[in-house]
Amino acid sequence: MIVDLTDEQAREALPCKWGAVEPGVVPAWVAEMDFALAEPIVEAVTAAVRRGTAGYPPFGDLGVGAALTGFADRHWSWSPPADASVVVGDVIAGIRIALEVLCPPGPVVVPLPCYPPFRDIVTLTGRELVHVTVDPDTEDQDAAALDLQQVEEAFAAGARTLLLCNPHNPLGRVPRRDELEALATLAQQYGARVVADEIHGPLVLPGATFTPYLEVDPTGILVTSHSKTFNTAGLHTAQVVVLDEAEQSALRAIPLPQNHAYSPLGMIAAVTAWTDCDDWHAALVTRLTEQRTLLAQLLETHLPKARMRPLEATYLPWVDLRDYGLEDPAAAGLEHGVRVAAGQAYQPGLAGHVRLNTATTPLRLEQMVERLAAAVAGSRP
Amino acid sequence: MIVDLTDEQAREALPCKWGAVEPGVVPAWVAEMDFALAEPIVEAVTAAVRRGTAGYPPFGDLGVGAALTGFADRHWSWSPPADASVVVGDVIAGIRIALEVLCPPGPVVVPLPCYPPFRDIVTLTGRELVHVTVDPDTEDQDAAALDLQQVEEAFAAGARTLLLCNPHNPLGRVPRRDELEALATLAQQYGARVVADEIHGPLVLPGATFTPYLEVDPTGILVTSHSKTFNTAGLHTAQVVVLDEAEQSALRAIPLPQNHAYSPLGMIAAVTAWTDCDDWHAALVTRLTEQRTLLAQLLETHLPKARMRPLEATYLPWVDLRDYGLEDPAAAGLEHGVRVAAGQAYQPGLAGHVRLNTATTPLRLEQMVERLAAAVAGSRP
Repeated sequence: MIVDLTDEQAREALPCKWGAVEPGVVPAWVAEMDFALAEPIVEAVTAAVRRGTAGYPPFGDLGVGAALTGFADRHWSWSPPADASVVVGDVIAGIRIALEVLCPPGPVVVPLPCYPPFRDIVTLTGRELVHVTVDPDTEDQDAAALDLQQVEEAFAAGARTLLLCNPHNPLGRVPRRDELEALATLAQQYGARVVADEIHGPLVLPGATFTPYLEVDPTGILVTSHSKTFNTAGLHTAQVVVLDEAEQSALRAIPLPQNHAYSPLGMIAAVTAWTDCDDWHAALVTRLTEQRTLLAQLLETHLPKARMRPLEATYLPWVDLRDYGLEDPAAAGLEHGVRVAAGQAYQPGLAGHVRLNTATTPLRLEQMVERLAAAVAGSRP
Repeated sequence: MIVDLTDEQAREALPCKWGAVEPGVVPAWVAEMDFALAEPIVEAVTAAVRRGTAGYPPFGDLGVGAALTGFADRHWSWSPPADASVVVGDVIAGIRIALEVLCPPGPVVVPLPCYPPFRDIVTLTGRELVHVTVDPDTEDQDAAALDLQQVEEAFAAGARTLLLCNPHNPLGRVPRRDELEALATLAQQYGARVVADEIHGPLVLPGATFTPYLEVDPTGILVTSHSKTFNTAGLHTAQVVVLDEAEQSALRAIPLPQNHAYSPLGMIAAVTAWTDCDDWHAALVTRLTEQRTLLAQLLETHLPKARMRPLEATYLPWVDLRDYGLEDPAAAGLEHGVRVAAGQAYQPGLAGHVRLNTATTPLRLEQMVERLAAAVAGSRP
């Protein structure tokens, strides 16, 4: 059910991911998948274009909120009200709107490592950034949780918003329910708001359990999209979900130019993805789980000194290659035919880490690891 | 070559324009056209979706800049360098970026009447708004130009940016070259920047001549899109064009979240529209010209006291109905089966004006005017 794209097809279909590398180089950097789109999405979107739907988006949400509710209920037994959802252009646009409209003044806590636009968006809204970091030397997976001690210090010093990534990109970790509850308690204590990016929620792999943050904190602000799971980032539709009705109204009342980036095609794709693509989604999770197994074997064979926390979710493994002694293994990889994401983009100053992308064929994953191994071996003293 | 949509087709294709009215009501408010998309755009966009292009946009501009250069050269004998163009999500997003990145600090002059988001976007960027107004009682078309006296006063008082709409929405007027030259001189004198929204440039009708503002002011900032002419606003691709290379670099260097709203499908549509749709564009201009003639006849017959400046461009006539004595003729129209745009949305406090939309069938245009006439007649004392 998952249709792999050939190199030639992928180069045409995914001009960002594949356009960034020369032919022959395996692109494993940006979070896109080398798979054909789910057929129901292709059908729904092309039918819309054929009938002329390329103009302004509709009033209302076309059922996007209800479709998310259905998906959340089927997969996580969580049913946010359909009208708690407000359509926005993408997750980062949603975070910007949340900061501009909903979050109290004060610095914003961004745990590191993080998806780089998290930092940009805080700066763009004129807020002060406060970082808390996960110690890269922590071997204990549970201790790789958000450091609540640091969070409390940030709140005590005046921060009133925290950007949570649940599941975490790039750590690939699914926060436990009790950790989220502790965070919620802390937020309540300081009157702080947690903005939860849960775009990777549908990409939790067998063995871990996803907890929607709003289940433990009704004041949380959820920002999500079908786009990461269904490879449709370019269609521009995401959702902000808040449970407070006055806040829903506030989001709906902002002037159009402040929330201008969503598209009718993205909304149609969102409804289709959340509603009619469970089979495709199940097949995707199966494939990503197989790739996770293959990755573990490949690392053991070719990169035995790599350290990696269990990949509980996403197709974006975070790999610590410091034992190979390279400052920037991603740069070395590029010399050896593979482009992976450099760890220091996610945590400035952090050496020796890379983020991979397993959402591809087994062959490309094998090439990815072999080439990375050649790159770090080539640099040994 | 222009294919009219039936009511049923239009309701499906254009959920914003048609979804805002009950069945039986003629929608003539928002700037969308009741026509099928140009076939080359349908083909290019659906082919892209079928091959899986729904993800992140490519590096570079996919040829969007060069395509605009070709169109501008063929239609206006103007050839901006292809790499002077930077892709953005839509015209308003482009204006926001221009204000955030290029324009000097200080208040922003927005001539009234104006497209309402012009005012929102200035406020959103934290700038002070300064209005200059066109006297609605000016019978002399030439005197309906921008009041340069008022503009100079605003510059003298500290404003350093002016938002120009060329051709003008909602006045439907094409500024003369000498007026633009005078504005350029004034801008130069005060070190002010003119941001020119030229999205209606391809919609100049026979009898008027379009002057790209950058032809008379190389420091001007052009914001444009194929989307108004080709009915593709929902695909999210527009362009900012600046001639200074350092400014081009500055625009390309902003972080992704500040310029996140463009889409690969919109870029593909833009290249196709600027390159392969001249026949469709010519047919559109012919249709809009016929509708302009029909409108004049209909107004003479049904609304003889309406005053209207010549419609030199756009499909959005600005009609002064004050002689019928109604504060809000658009609201009255809605009671009589037609939804037009209320003048006070374009100029707060201005009574008795409406903006129509002629980009539809002759029959709907007839109904539009007849119903508006019934509405204003019904209210006579």
